[in-house]
Amino acid sequence: MKPDERNLTLLTDFYELTMMQGYFREEEQNVQVIFDAFFRSNPDGNAFSISCGLEQVIQLIENFHFDEDDIEYLKSLGTFHDDFLDYLRDFKFTGSIWAIPEGNVMFPRESVIKVAAPIMQAQLLETAILNIINHQSLIATKAARVVEAAEGDGVMEFGLRRAQGPDAGIYGARAAVIAGCVGTSNVLAGQMFDIPVLGTHAHSWIMSFEDELSAFRAYAKLYPDNCILLIDTYDTLKSGLPNAIKVFKEMREAGIKPKKYGIRMDSGDLAYLSKKVKKAFDAEGFYDVTISASNDLDENLISSLKQQGAKINSWGVGTNLITSKDTPSFGGVYKLAAIEDRATGKFIPKIKVSENTEKVTNPGDKVIYRIYGRDTGKIIADLIALKEEKYSTDEDLLLFDPVETWKKTLLKAGTYTMKELLIPVYLNGECVYKDRPTVMELQKICREDMATLWEESRRLTNPSTVHVDLSRPLWELKQAMLDKYKAV
Amino acid sequence: MKPDERNLTLLTDFYELTMMQGYFREEEQNVQVIFDAFFRSNPDGNAFSISCGLEQVIQLIENFHFDEDDIEYLKSLGTFHDDFLDYLRDFKFTGSIWAIPEGNVMFPRESVIKVAAPIMQAQLLETAILNIINHQSLIATKAARVVEAAEGDGVMEFGLRRAQGPDAGIYGARAAVIAGCVGTSNVLAGQMFDIPVLGTHAHSWIMSFEDELSAFRAYAKLYPDNCILLIDTYDTLKSGLPNAIKVFKEMREAGIKPKKYGIRMDSGDLAYLSKKVKKAFDAEGFYDVTISASNDLDENLISSLKQQGAKINSWGVGTNLITSKDTPSFGGVYKLAAIEDRATGKFIPKIKVSENTEKVTNPGDKVIYRIYGRDTGKIIADLIALKEEKYSTDEDLLLFDPVETWKKTLLKAGTYTMKELLIPVYLNGECVYKDRPTVMELQKICREDMATLWEESRRLTNPSTVHVDLSRPLWELKQAMLDKYKAV
Repeated sequence: MKPDERNLTLLTDFYELTMMQGYFREEEQNVQVIFDAFFRSNPDGNAFSISCGLEQVIQLIENFHFDEDDIEYLKSLGTFHDDFLDYLRDFKFTGSIWAIPEGNVMFPRESVIKVAAPIMQAQLLETAILNIINHQSLIATKAARVVEAAEGDGVMEFGLRRAQGPDAGIYGARAAVIAGCVGTSNVLAGQMFDIPVLGTHAHSWIMSFEDELSAFRAYAKLYPDNCILLIDTYDTLKSGLPNAIKVFKEMREAGIKPKKYGIRMDSGDLAYLSKKVKKAFDAEGFYDVTISASNDLDENLISSLKQQGAKINSWGVGTNLITSKDTPSFGGVYKLAAIEDRATGKFIPKIKVSENTEKVTNPGDKVIYRIYGRDTGKIIADLIALKEEKYSTDEDLLLFDPVETWKKTLLKAGTYTMKELLIPVYLNGECVYKDRPTVMELQKICREDMATLWEESRRLTNPSTVHVDLSRPLWELKQAMLDKYKAV
Repeated sequence: MKPDERNLTLLTDFYELTMMQGYFREEEQNVQVIFDAFFRSNPDGNAFSISCGLEQVIQLIENFHFDEDDIEYLKSLGTFHDDFLDYLRDFKFTGSIWAIPEGNVMFPRESVIKVAAPIMQAQLLETAILNIINHQSLIATKAARVVEAAEGDGVMEFGLRRAQGPDAGIYGARAAVIAGCVGTSNVLAGQMFDIPVLGTHAHSWIMSFEDELSAFRAYAKLYPDNCILLIDTYDTLKSGLPNAIKVFKEMREAGIKPKKYGIRMDSGDLAYLSKKVKKAFDAEGFYDVTISASNDLDENLISSLKQQGAKINSWGVGTNLITSKDTPSFGGVYKLAAIEDRATGKFIPKIKVSENTEKVTNPGDKVIYRIYGRDTGKIIADLIALKEEKYSTDEDLLLFDPVETWKKTLLKAGTYTMKELLIPVYLNGECVYKDRPTVMELQKICREDMATLWEESRRLTNPSTVHVDLSRPLWELKQAMLDKYKAV
């Protein structure tokens, strides 16, 4: 039994169930609603985030059912009535879901997932959807930053021991590889997602032998094809480095040519040591040595080491990536956007007002268009619009900032292309997103999608914001609804 | 199938398996070793941490086995030989484990878990033990801080939607309740650990009705016994508060007496608003109203609100607790402390040297004594000693600082008591820790153990450090080993 076969039906906040029973009692259970899952800011001051976790949302829904144990447990709480529990026994998701596909670049205030379903169902899914999407999108976004800092060197995800529980390690590794890590140390993640697993040995291997040289020789004998030796157990330059070189020379003399060989350092001044290491290997003619480093690294430290000319070409990143240390939560929320008028069957837009402008939601049944320059292929802006609006790239398009509305951009017909971001995942309870990409395919998708960002939006510090505009009809609807609330 | 029945055997770093095969090939697999899992500093500048996660380590070991899928997967990697894979097929843990029991206070450099086992087995368990203990001890320690700040008010764990994946929510809720939270919003955690589940309704409940008053009335009709109304959907003071009071007056007039009633606020100036709310309820004779708050709270904000005289008596804490936002990783490590001499069968101490003094490990097979003042019952210090040392409280005890060794304390016979902290969990492969406490029992254990700390070590800011000393024989062993390495 692997983690993805679990029944996570009760992975929900208690209030979702008390509200559900409320809707059930009020005989409101079949009213259709639209909820948007979106986030308000990118982690780590980044200019974008990476959508990640949809696959696990689909698995959650596919496995969704209240078994007898669950019903018994809920009954034992004394809060739920038998008719409601009977309803749960037969619960099945019958709604529709759209999502920004995994590995895609996304921006604040865009629905990463849109749920249109009977209110009881849409409400019940809230917590688990947020838990999954918040976690994986967070780690994918962090990993994208680390990979960016490594400028083409391989980044290995090494964080399992510091992850916030088994799932954080497993799904964190998945997200990290989607965002560009070359592999993970996590064997279970390797098995579950068919992604490369990496790693060699620890200090304890060295310490369990009489001396370092014997430990290196034993390792090289066992794994001649992929031989990375950890050189900082006793003294990096005085002991580890000469012993490692000795072993590689012995291998060369014996005619053994490893596919990959080199060293790893897990402590000390990595800039200084890596230059010494590179020089020593060069002096012996080992020009293609792998020099890997792994001590509490993150994107900023990697970037600084690069700037200092460190001779490291392989990066093991643990704690800071797997916990997204500087910003350890993604902040995605799930808000009611529209509710069916039972008389007409039409959706009535809903808005959540707040004194804090950023917390005011966008009302109605919406779609997201991504607009690219036709010549550059780069993103110009995203446009959130009401579903019924029609657009054609044969016409000029006027974009304006939804807050500072005098800031306008006119896109001439023929100079831009558009793509709808949200794809259908469920339609009336049926999963329509077949042939879903593997994790390694998602890695490629992510790389290609990140290439549509301008360089200025990819940099680690103070990147340029990508505009997310509202269409005029959506903007006017929002203003009218806000005015109405203020009048009350 | 609940998460605790999963097979997490492959939840390990790849290098544990490559090293294992190494030991297997070297015919070293039966050499006995001792590993210590310990941490180097408390999160958040706290003066102590809470041991948490042992139950899940035991479950991991009880379920530990390589099934055919696992063997097939490992074979597919091309790194492992058939004889080693055959060995894994029959793998069973035959070693011994000691641990600081869950809910106990612990300090840096103490083994929270000590493993004595054949080297292959001890190595294989490293990653999963660290993952579990690091996560739960982190969240328990954070929760203890939040509960301390709330000064006896109830703290509710509300973080599932922002947790780093399902397990982070599930086991984070477990840890939070052990450290004193009154309950969790997480229904699955409630079911798995038999802990209270809490929560009422969200803004979406209010927004799905024609108006706020109808939403409140519908909720009060459904849940008259436990009626907490969320008052900040539209306008806290102008709309939410008067509507809530109206509903509670209607209940009173109808002769309905809720066991618990009140309001929740999730936005705005909580100090100001809560005073207004309390005054308005008081004016209507509702003196025992529950005023609960829940907007990005942590221990510092709660402490500040308390100081400002906020009239809040119930705290919902989400993101910052469940991710331990300021310090999102615990930093526990797993280091080789001793290795069997095959000639004599005795353990030879091992040490990991580092330029950074704090990273130098304590060698040998060790125990931990906790020393209390006989009259106060409070902790004086912890003493790490070699297993073979004998102590008696009938004799004077001289403690000294392991770094600034001139700092000495003499404890006179009869003025102190001692307790061994590590309890046996496995002995020669058999789990000897029966009758393990439930989560609610662990909560009581934790409360009692925290009461053995001096107040000065419990405060949130700049708490007094609790001394962790080394016995003279251990200190001398360590110095001798360090001197030997420096001589090389």
